[in-house]
Amino acid sequence: MTDKGKRAKVDEDEGAELDPELVMAIEKLQEVQDDLERVNEEASDKVLEVEQRYNEIRRPVYNKRNEIIHNIPDFWLTAFLSHPVLNELLSDEDQKVFKYLESLDVEDFKDVKSGYSITFAFKPNPYFEDAKLTKIFKFSDEGTTSVTGSVPKWKDGMDLTNGVVAEKENHKRAHAEDSFFKWFGDSAQKESLEGIQDEVSTFFLVAEVIKDDLWPNPLKYFNNEADEEEYEDDEEAEDDEDDAGKGAEELDDEEEEPDEDEEDDES
Amino acid sequence: MTDKGKRAKVDEDEGAELDPELVMAIEKLQEVQDDLERVNEEASDKVLEVEQRYNEIRRPVYNKRNEIIHNIPDFWLTAFLSHPVLNELLSDEDQKVFKYLESLDVEDFKDVKSGYSITFAFKPNPYFEDAKLTKIFKFSDEGTTSVTGSVPKWKDGMDLTNGVVAEKENHKRAHAEDSFFKWFGDSAQKESLEGIQDEVSTFFLVAEVIKDDLWPNPLKYFNNEADEEEYEDDEEAEDDEDDAGKGAEELDDEEEEPDEDEEDDES
Repeated sequence: MTDKGKRAKVDEDEGAELDPELVMAIEKLQEVQDDLERVNEEASDKVLEVEQRYNEIRRPVYNKRNEIIHNIPDFWLTAFLSHPVLNELLSDEDQKVFKYLESLDVEDFKDVKSGYSITFAFKPNPYFEDAKLTKIFKFSDEGTTSVTGSVPKWKDGMDLTNGVVAEKENHKRAHAEDSFFKWFGDSAQKESLEGIQDEVSTFFLVAEVIKDDLWPNPLKYFNNEADEEEYEDDEEAEDDEDDAGKGAEELDDEEEEPDEDEEDDES
Repeated sequence: MTDKGKRAKVDEDEGAELDPELVMAIEKLQEVQDDLERVNEEASDKVLEVEQRYNEIRRPVYNKRNEIIHNIPDFWLTAFLSHPVLNELLSDEDQKVFKYLESLDVEDFKDVKSGYSITFAFKPNPYFEDAKLTKIFKFSDEGTTSVTGSVPKWKDGMDLTNGVVAEKENHKRAHAEDSFFKWFGDSAQKESLEGIQDEVSTFFLVAEVIKDDLWPNPLKYFNNEADEEEYEDDEEAEDDEDDAGKGAEELDDEEEEPDEDEEDDES
């Protein structure tokens, strides 16, 4: 009986080709692959440990940076407006809200691999009640990213995301048609790289640009040093930061108001 | 005098807005960015150290795997032909050459970050003199990749890359029109992600698929387990490898000839 069963199995498998030595070799090969898998997992864990350790080292430096930035008027507004991607997202009204932006913070979750948050803190302002607007990105083990965000509690008649304020003031829009603040309310889930609609992918792009490009070195954009670089060319850009100190001179050039002086002369 | 010089500079800078405190703040900010840059470099170095250490741990496992594979006939040929990208690169003639393929090896340079090599070792064969064909990818600090490769020393009338052999034998081509072996002779330089022509990008794709997909787990392809997975969906695919042991049974399933049993019944 045993023999027959075995025989049948061999027939199924076109046994002529499948000699026991081959089966054995493939089993051994599978064991080696399992070993490799374990080594790879251990390597990933070790890399993660390094990233966690260095995130802890970076945190107080980021905190110190936030304190310094706090004393530079319109720092984040200027950095956003000088950024080739982010500058297209702020409407004229959004820019007025950004005048009240007190701090920006990007924080990995403690284990690094399960997500991060982006927090905008605002001074009391005529637009919304919130002191903070936060967007949270959670990565699952299955490779999906889910997003939650604070929908701003707009004050009466100040909701920038329904277009009312913009129409009322009849602004010419230098930048975005839509409000950046829509981004906080929107939520989405990213399954994997394929099959994302463009809209969703822009949605994640904003987060990734803030986290991976603006946040590591906002001074580069504040100083407008990224102008001549191809935006895609991030790696080389990092080498160009040494002469960033000269940046202050470029500050506020655009807001120059030559008319004021003339009026003074006439009176 | 000093005062005047200072004044002139301030005028240039639209000084009304540029108080010394602001200049100081921006200088401090630059210092913090420099600190961050140092932390980031240290973090990269530590990650690299981990990768180097684990490459050393993997090497003997890969060597052991190569020995096992050596005893499985046509292992690499089968894995190539079962791979959704690589299978399109082997012409009928290439497949005959692959019968002489004795081993495949992918090795990072010792420092990991400066490059890697892909080596195909062949048994003595009627096609070319070389015992090994190697392709070397060198990364520069500036982000470019340069490639060198062994051009096969074809035996008389056996050069698959000039199309002569193929024409002579008047083969219907199930797979590639061009020979895979052209890939060894081609050389190219990749400056950055943007601006690569399609041709160059296919060129690097072959190397990347071999290095990052085939090499980590060729058994998956040999067993034909990757069939139902979207090729792009690599991350999830790795979770599916646990049941790879059953692979031997699936081997050659497609060549099953159901007629045999019926014939047995009739006789």
